[in-house]
Amino acid sequence: MPQDTLTHLRDRLRAFAAERDWDQFHNPKNLAMALSGEAGELLEHFQWLTFEEAAALAPEARGEVALEAADVLLYLVRLCDKCGIDLAAAADAKLAINAERYPVEKSRGQNTKYDRL
Amino acid sequence: MPQDTLTHLRDRLRAFAAERDWDQFHNPKNLAMALSGEAGELLEHFQWLTFEEAAALAPEARGEVALEAADVLLYLVRLCDKCGIDLAAAADAKLAINAERYPVEKSRGQNTKYDRL
Amino acid sequence: MPQDTLTHLRDRLRAFAAERDWDQFHNPKNLAMALSGEAGELLEHFQWLTFEEAAALAPEARGEVALEAADVLLYLVRLCDKCGIDLAAAADAKLAINAERYPVEKSRGQNTKYDRL
Amino acid sequence: MPQDTLTHLRDRLRAFAAERDWDQFHNPKNLAMALSGEAGELLEHFQWLTFEEAAALAPEARGEVALEAADVLLYLVRLCDKCGIDLAAAADAKLAINAERYPVEKSRGQNTKYDRL
Repeated sequence: MPQDTLTHLRDRLRAFAAERDWDQFHNPKNLAMALSGEAGELLEHFQWLTFEEAAALAPEARGEVALEAADVLLYLVRLCDKCGIDLAAAADAKLAINAERYPVEKSRGQNTKYDRL
Repeated sequence: MPQDTLTHLRDRLRAFAAERDWDQFHNPKNLAMALSGEAGELLEHFQWLTFEEAAALAPEARGEVALEAADVLLYLVRLCDKCGIDLAAAADAKLAINAERYPVEKSRGQNTKYDRL
Repeated sequence: MPQDTLTHLRDRLRAFAAERDWDQFHNPKNLAMALSGEAGELLEHFQWLTFEEAAALAPEARGEVALEAADVLLYLVRLCDKCGIDLAAAADAKLAINAERYPVEKSRGQNTKYDRL
Repeated sequence: MPQDTLTHLRDRLRAFAAERDWDQFHNPKNLAMALSGEAGELLEHFQWLTFEEAAALAPEARGEVALEAADVLLYLVRLCDKCGIDLAAAADAKLAINAERYPVEKSRGQNTKYDRL
């Protein structure tokens, strides 16, 4: 049975850091900074685009965005590992909170109260 | 066999948006902004902490950080879905790039050239 | 003669921090985090808006955005002060670089190579 | 009498954009994204540094940080101009709010409730 992607990445990142003696740099504070920096790089790909352009990236741009998205995921997984956070469980918990916060009948087609996913 | 977490979240977010007619708001440009905003909220949890404090979050703080991390993951999964990006494949590709960029013997214990994971 | 705004803010922030014994928290690393967090809060105001909505904020929204913009400026001024950076001089230097990087005749109406201001 | 820096920058940025026909790209939504992206680049300079390293940047690093800080300021000034926000007035208003929110006697040496400047 294949391993879950998040668990697989967590384990590969642990090994990657251990081999390079990088645990000393992977304090959660630093990792939160690196995560935010990568989110900013991803953002920059979209900053001058129209909605139409953003929804139809050319293959080269999509490939660049994919690698930025990967950077965000890798730092996120590593941050959660160093904080003792189960990321998959947290995502499930947040989805449950969102379902309660945004009832279907009140949220349909509204972006006004919609300040979180 | 349980579904992979990233695929599971992608499908749940699709259903969540469809039920609320929110696809109209989920342009990749908007999602990249939401992702960066959530990364900023996560960052704010760590901004005044020492390394020692950041590495030993109290349970309440850890719970808050977990929900911010979940927000980042949910927007990231949704963004990749709307861009036609396979996030798990992108993460594997980026890990391969990083392994080549940071050879073990040259990278050990170095943070000087270390500006990416 | 009134003092320049940036100098005025720098001095008020120095006094503000000194009165509260907050210099101990105002390491440039922490201030860069706080700045990025505030930029993220500013971003969140715009994340679900159309271009038309973003260009015509209602007075209440404009007031909120103004305070977020102020937060960004205050942390930026404080960060530069703690790093020994003359922010006004840096802005002039960057404008000169931009003028050279984006010659009028080649840049007119182009956003393609336009990844910096 | 020299012009105030913020007014001076606002006017130079207006001329810069007008010459290049860039007003079409300078929607507040785009500018908020560019601002956040630049804040992220500034953040990346500090992400692997200790507090000691961050507080004692070498001249070359300080020069790079200065240009990133300039980018943040330029986008911030431009964003406020396009939103009809008086940035200097907003900064004064925010300082007054902060003085009330963080009374000297209660805030001295505390970072616990200290989640804003």
